[in-house]
Amino acid sequence: MFAHKKNASAFFLENYLKNIILALLMANYDDVINLSIRRSLFYPSSEIYKGPAGFYNYGPYGSAIKRKIVDLWRKNLVQKEGFLEINGSIAMPEDVFKASGHMTNFNDPVTKCKKCGAFHRADHLLKEKTGEDFKEAMSNEVLTNALRKNKIACPKCKGDLSDVSKLNMMVKVDVGVTPKNVYLRPETCQTIFTDFSRMMKTMRLKLPQGVSQCGKSFRNEISPRQTILRTVEFDQMETEIFFDAEKINEIESWEEVKNYKVCVQLAGKDKVEQINCVDLVKKKIVSGQVIAYYLARTQQLYESYGFNKENIRFRQLDNEERAFYAKEAWDFEVKTSLGWLELIANNYRTDYDLANHANGSKENLNYVYPDGKKVLPHVWEISIGVDRTFYAVVENSLKILNDKTVLSLPTSLAPLHAAVFPLVTNKEEVVNKAKEVMQKLNYLDVVYDDSGSVGKRYARMDEVGVPYCITIDHQTVEDNTVTIRDRDTTEQKRVKIEEISKKMHDLLWMNKSFKEI
Amino acid sequence: MFAHKKNASAFFLENYLKNIILALLMANYDDVINLSIRRSLFYPSSEIYKGPAGFYNYGPYGSAIKRKIVDLWRKNLVQKEGFLEINGSIAMPEDVFKASGHMTNFNDPVTKCKKCGAFHRADHLLKEKTGEDFKEAMSNEVLTNALRKNKIACPKCKGDLSDVSKLNMMVKVDVGVTPKNVYLRPETCQTIFTDFSRMMKTMRLKLPQGVSQCGKSFRNEISPRQTILRTVEFDQMETEIFFDAEKINEIESWEEVKNYKVCVQLAGKDKVEQINCVDLVKKKIVSGQVIAYYLARTQQLYESYGFNKENIRFRQLDNEERAFYAKEAWDFEVKTSLGWLELIANNYRTDYDLANHANGSKENLNYVYPDGKKVLPHVWEISIGVDRTFYAVVENSLKILNDKTVLSLPTSLAPLHAAVFPLVTNKEEVVNKAKEVMQKLNYLDVVYDDSGSVGKRYARMDEVGVPYCITIDHQTVEDNTVTIRDRDTTEQKRVKIEEISKKMHDLLWMNKSFKEI
Repeated sequence: MFAHKKNASAFFLENYLKNIILALLMANYDDVINLSIRRSLFYPSSEIYKGPAGFYNYGPYGSAIKRKIVDLWRKNLVQKEGFLEINGSIAMPEDVFKASGHMTNFNDPVTKCKKCGAFHRADHLLKEKTGEDFKEAMSNEVLTNALRKNKIACPKCKGDLSDVSKLNMMVKVDVGVTPKNVYLRPETCQTIFTDFSRMMKTMRLKLPQGVSQCGKSFRNEISPRQTILRTVEFDQMETEIFFDAEKINEIESWEEVKNYKVCVQLAGKDKVEQINCVDLVKKKIVSGQVIAYYLARTQQLYESYGFNKENIRFRQLDNEERAFYAKEAWDFEVKTSLGWLELIANNYRTDYDLANHANGSKENLNYVYPDGKKVLPHVWEISIGVDRTFYAVVENSLKILNDKTVLSLPTSLAPLHAAVFPLVTNKEEVVNKAKEVMQKLNYLDVVYDDSGSVGKRYARMDEVGVPYCITIDHQTVEDNTVTIRDRDTTEQKRVKIEEISKKMHDLLWMNKSFKEI
Repeated sequence: MFAHKKNASAFFLENYLKNIILALLMANYDDVINLSIRRSLFYPSSEIYKGPAGFYNYGPYGSAIKRKIVDLWRKNLVQKEGFLEINGSIAMPEDVFKASGHMTNFNDPVTKCKKCGAFHRADHLLKEKTGEDFKEAMSNEVLTNALRKNKIACPKCKGDLSDVSKLNMMVKVDVGVTPKNVYLRPETCQTIFTDFSRMMKTMRLKLPQGVSQCGKSFRNEISPRQTILRTVEFDQMETEIFFDAEKINEIESWEEVKNYKVCVQLAGKDKVEQINCVDLVKKKIVSGQVIAYYLARTQQLYESYGFNKENIRFRQLDNEERAFYAKEAWDFEVKTSLGWLELIANNYRTDYDLANHANGSKENLNYVYPDGKKVLPHVWEISIGVDRTFYAVVENSLKILNDKTVLSLPTSLAPLHAAVFPLVTNKEEVVNKAKEVMQKLNYLDVVYDDSGSVGKRYARMDEVGVPYCITIDHQTVEDNTVTIRDRDTTEQKRVKIEEISKKMHDLLWMNKSFKEI
């Protein structure tokens, strides 16, 4: 009894201290930017030409992490759920965006400086000046009046600002092949809607059916900000789940999620609640099981990205915040040093898109059941920002203590599985053993690094999130063992070369901990 | 002796017949298009709106095959050679393309119909009419005279054609964030050149060093043709290998390739010769070991894509064909039903790009050795067209006999590793066993298919290149065995469920044949 009590309080103390230490180590926005610039995770595009704001490139480690974020989405959401993944062209003709409503409705409220000619987002200027929550959907009059009332001038030159007007955010491209206007898509999902007819005809799909796409989109953002968080060119991973609105409470694997708790913050409420899927439906918080199911699956994806439930929420959008076509909408957000950051727009788009594209293209987009019954499917959308997810994953994984920087990425998101270090480079036996290890691990993403002290090499790998470093030293030549070092604990173990492949396999794919191997 | 003779002639006969049968099965361009449209491998973008020519989308199977082509490039070339892979924005400011020479030199010879206003490529019209080899680099006068001499009219309306002029192929985009002109890159390598300075500063690179990128490029092609073979929007996998021109004969793993035979067709010659790397250098066919080495590595990549040496060649470009900055150039081509098809431009670009960008950006792009010696690196370029490679891989893998279509892709390029079929869907035991098999294979790309006869399901999977089908039948319920069927031989084997994961592992990763497992 006493022993139990002691253990319990020791356990409590240990956890308490661990949480304090973790809080102290937590990185902020500037830490992410510093690391990114130093190790080229991401950096301004056309940097040597001082290229325009709103365009970013990803370096070797950054692009590898970004690719693994996409791979995990594909594995844990797309493939597991039987979604069809397509890959379409970025440029599309104006007809598509007339039908989708983008040509008329996709606008930002802007004001132009009468002196220097710079454009600014009126809602952003107002938010910054007043701290109040001005929204892009507010009318030109409301925003213009607020600008005047708050006496806001051009942030660049202090010149007078024009009345607020709406600027269309579509990015036009000049292609000679057609007299039609062509635009770069502002969201990847338009490809999914235009290709839905073909998917029905050739892919034997049954409702509900998700169709996914990962790729570039462009928005004519006139005030890009916060590096990769608001850019003109960006990556999305989107899924549109087509379903029969009458069967919104029929979803195959419901049993698997029904007791799973989703973190939701209801419109008008201050707190995040954990509500299981059954209750989300029963209490009519969501429109039906299909929606509860995909909220759960989406949250599970982000748990696999390393986010704790305490740091995530689906924020319910109220009437004013929702897009006009959305019957129900939830922004998936994670807690960062910048506050809650929106990573995913989850929208119940009803049959808005298919109805408009059926009308615009004169194509029949009805789904036909084997018995001949026809239905225009409704759509649940999971629209993920890849760059924002990248930022959030890096900030969430970054720990800094004095001069020591560690990017504790989940192993499935690490840019490399391991690094191999020969302790010295002037002994042929050591170098040969190191190459033997490289050979044994050639099924993994492994880098060879022989420059600088081993301590410096560890530090370089820790910073970019490589989970394991394997060192070949003098003892290796004698007994064929190497050390494996664990990034997060810095513990080391000696392992036989002949077992190195198996050990890495267990660590990476079999969910074994470093202690267990 | 006699037995040996008999075996030899039997062997000869078997091979002779095999080659005849293979030739009969060979697919052509129309077969590829038919399959693609029927199974949505690729299809016109914005199809329901009759979108502009020159834009294509990839469906679920097509995009998976395309992704695996990129993955194999990354594994067998980029990672194996220690290249750095970056991922940059598609849109770049005009400064970049002024320095690269694209704003002035990147032109196509076009003629405009005086009646209907359509643009046409003058060299294409001439080639079609005369069968002679007209080149885009020919002068406006030469092409105009040839048009007149051959009495060529507008192919659309028979109207008179204008004199030939040069049309710039850069695609301009309207972005509001900058007063500068912004273009979509016409080749991904420009990102590699602009980021080279940052790679030197942050990635500890040593010459020779490859920097790679896979992504979209755009060219203002006014007469797109042959579906994905000539489009406005397309994918490239490019590598620029930076090296010290004085050390063109120093490359680390030379021993590994020196006896490897590269298929080359010298300028002015009719035949393809197989010449090993040592001889390529010794006979001064290439400028040095660095180039011979990467020709070999590139050819090896395409052998892993399933091409035989008989169907590939590096065609040496003569002075007239080479880009003006290229000191040496080889087009890598494969034999298809359309004739030899260029998939890769291999160019010795010297220091042309870095010198121009150093000049344009005022950034110092010299590589500095530890001893302080400075050098402006030279560049060997491996510029791969992904869409053309996709086409060639599909045509090369496609076999058609009567109604039977089989896409015999290398397993590493297959869109899925396996399909799982419950023989019947009305027996719970069978369905449960099928789900158990799905669970055991969840580390692979596997699809579950329970609709139609098993024969039809096999045929559907054969067509899109799925190498293995696993069927769960009545016997499975009794003895826990399933059948695995091999796509290419249609042979079947019974295997225990508990061994299925191991067997698939051996087939997919351990290079074991279906007979061996």
